[in-house]
Amino acid sequence: MTTIKDVAVLAGVSFKTVSRVINRSPHVKEDVRQRVLRAADALEYRPHHHARHMRTQRSKVFGFLSDDIATTPFAGQIIQGAQEAAFRKEMLLLTFNTGGNAAVEQAAVEMAIERGVEGIIFATMYHRAVQVPKDAFRLPLVLVDCFSPDRSVRSVVPDEVSGGYSATKLLLEKGHRRIAMINANQKYPAAEGRFRGYRDALREYRLTIDPELVRLGGWWQDDGYEQTMALLKLKQIPTAIFCASDRIAMGAYDALKEQGLKIPGDMSVIGFDNQELLAAHSRPRLTTISIPYFEMGSWAVERLTNTAQDSDESPIRPVALPCPLIARSSVERPANRKLRNKDSAHIR
Amino acid sequence: MTTIKDVAVLAGVSFKTVSRVINRSPHVKEDVRQRVLRAADALEYRPHHHARHMRTQRSKVFGFLSDDIATTPFAGQIIQGAQEAAFRKEMLLLTFNTGGNAAVEQAAVEMAIERGVEGIIFATMYHRAVQVPKDAFRLPLVLVDCFSPDRSVRSVVPDEVSGGYSATKLLLEKGHRRIAMINANQKYPAAEGRFRGYRDALREYRLTIDPELVRLGGWWQDDGYEQTMALLKLKQIPTAIFCASDRIAMGAYDALKEQGLKIPGDMSVIGFDNQELLAAHSRPRLTTISIPYFEMGSWAVERLTNTAQDSDESPIRPVALPCPLIARSSVERPANRKLRNKDSAHIR
Repeated sequence: MTTIKDVAVLAGVSFKTVSRVINRSPHVKEDVRQRVLRAADALEYRPHHHARHMRTQRSKVFGFLSDDIATTPFAGQIIQGAQEAAFRKEMLLLTFNTGGNAAVEQAAVEMAIERGVEGIIFATMYHRAVQVPKDAFRLPLVLVDCFSPDRSVRSVVPDEVSGGYSATKLLLEKGHRRIAMINANQKYPAAEGRFRGYRDALREYRLTIDPELVRLGGWWQDDGYEQTMALLKLKQIPTAIFCASDRIAMGAYDALKEQGLKIPGDMSVIGFDNQELLAAHSRPRLTTISIPYFEMGSWAVERLTNTAQDSDESPIRPVALPCPLIARSSVERPANRKLRNKDSAHIR
Repeated sequence: MTTIKDVAVLAGVSFKTVSRVINRSPHVKEDVRQRVLRAADALEYRPHHHARHMRTQRSKVFGFLSDDIATTPFAGQIIQGAQEAAFRKEMLLLTFNTGGNAAVEQAAVEMAIERGVEGIIFATMYHRAVQVPKDAFRLPLVLVDCFSPDRSVRSVVPDEVSGGYSATKLLLEKGHRRIAMINANQKYPAAEGRFRGYRDALREYRLTIDPELVRLGGWWQDDGYEQTMALLKLKQIPTAIFCASDRIAMGAYDALKEQGLKIPGDMSVIGFDNQELLAAHSRPRLTTISIPYFEMGSWAVERLTNTAQDSDESPIRPVALPCPLIARSSVERPANRKLRNKDSAHIR
């Protein structure tokens, strides 16, 4: 087994210099860095082997760092997916809730490394770009529901585009042609990807986007309520609404019911997220798109336990897992075509 | 420092016998058990000192076992409270999601002990009696949101009774006298305690419970909807509803709105749980009772890190933490007193 000392000897540098290169310290001259990397390659040395072989026995523990994941209803399933996969491999998770604070994240990584974890999973409560604490690179590392902007780290994310596409496609297949989208006004991958899916599905049906049907606000119930009220004031109201979150859909429900419209009889509604507390218990049950939290958690652990898959691929593209359609009772074909085509479609 | 061997020598038994007594094995004769316990007492030996001193260094890790806690929107805050308290003490949590499966729980406890955890926190997703895996008793142990029926283990639970009392008291103080309660039809501490609080508050106002105002079903939105519809069919409808969960309250909202009643104008509604996703984003915002999940998690870690507080108290009473009132917008004084007193209060 190759040790860090073998690499140091072959590269003709000190142990500390090799360590600096592994830890991506900026304080190493480029030619020295190249020499160390060539030596490491020649000896088939991998940094994570280092961390593992430094100890006399394996800890069989992964560090699981998350921002607010454990405290949101969104993504506890990431933990469950990771834990079940870890359990099958007789691995355990040491969990850290960092609250997204960079200093806490740094401390958590140090504590995890001190305790000999064999790899680190770094998860966020919503799909976004992250800055990973530098020390985390000393170990095998996988990002969940987030990605590194420089694409230097393996990561798994939801396929937002295909989710938005499936939602819109369902409405199109049911016969809807005037389909609104209530989205969040943010540059996050969730908002952008879900919109791209909406656009792609409309294009497939040779429909152009009607800008007055695309409503932008926040992710919450109040936003859904306000934007739906705005849609209902249009000369020609839509027959279906694709909401970028189940929370938005709940606000749309409130507005539609308040205006005396039946769901799905007068208006079909589809959500995104499959938050059980909302989608599975609303009246009517909400048809929505599920985010593969559980699968992303499992994937991360499987990936960490199978480093044989590691390659020198660079940049590393995030793996996008599918977002399945969960069919419930809030979508049907547009029944009242007259209403849809009348100019007098104002409600109250 | 006293070791298990000192106890064995003083009691005149083998190391294994002492271990069996500590592990509460049934295969020890009563007189031998008493002899070992006397020897342990005389030497001021405590089982958890054993586990700790067996190792050359402290792991500074607690095992955190939960059933489905990480995957429900209910109680992720227990994890957060425990983690923040642990972090302050430079301790970490090794988390296990057991799904409530006894075999998995047993395996998780073994894995935690193998890895040298210094104590175990055992948490459940709702307040109930639990059977703790036998091996967990080998270490300092605290139960969260659950309790051991034989009261042999330290535990922290929500004060359900005072929560139910606060909810009902608020309605009484606002002037309501005809107050319904929609509860779950279960022998769980949450259902029983919240009802006792309701009863106590009514008694304080010298009101007797009207059996037709106490509706029993499940915990979910549909239950709240059905029971509210039943309440609205009474000759004399209530002016306020205390719902034993926020989910029930959301169903009550649906029924009331569907019947054209204004909340809180025509009917005040108060929930229980303070599930942010529902209570903080409903129309109107739901006044409710908060469950001290975060505080219970902190309490458990504080208690484990402060074993000096341990006494020989037996049975051990669960510590009940207060459930604070979260005032939002769904409760006001009964405005339409005429409606309340008319016999013709049928709605539609």
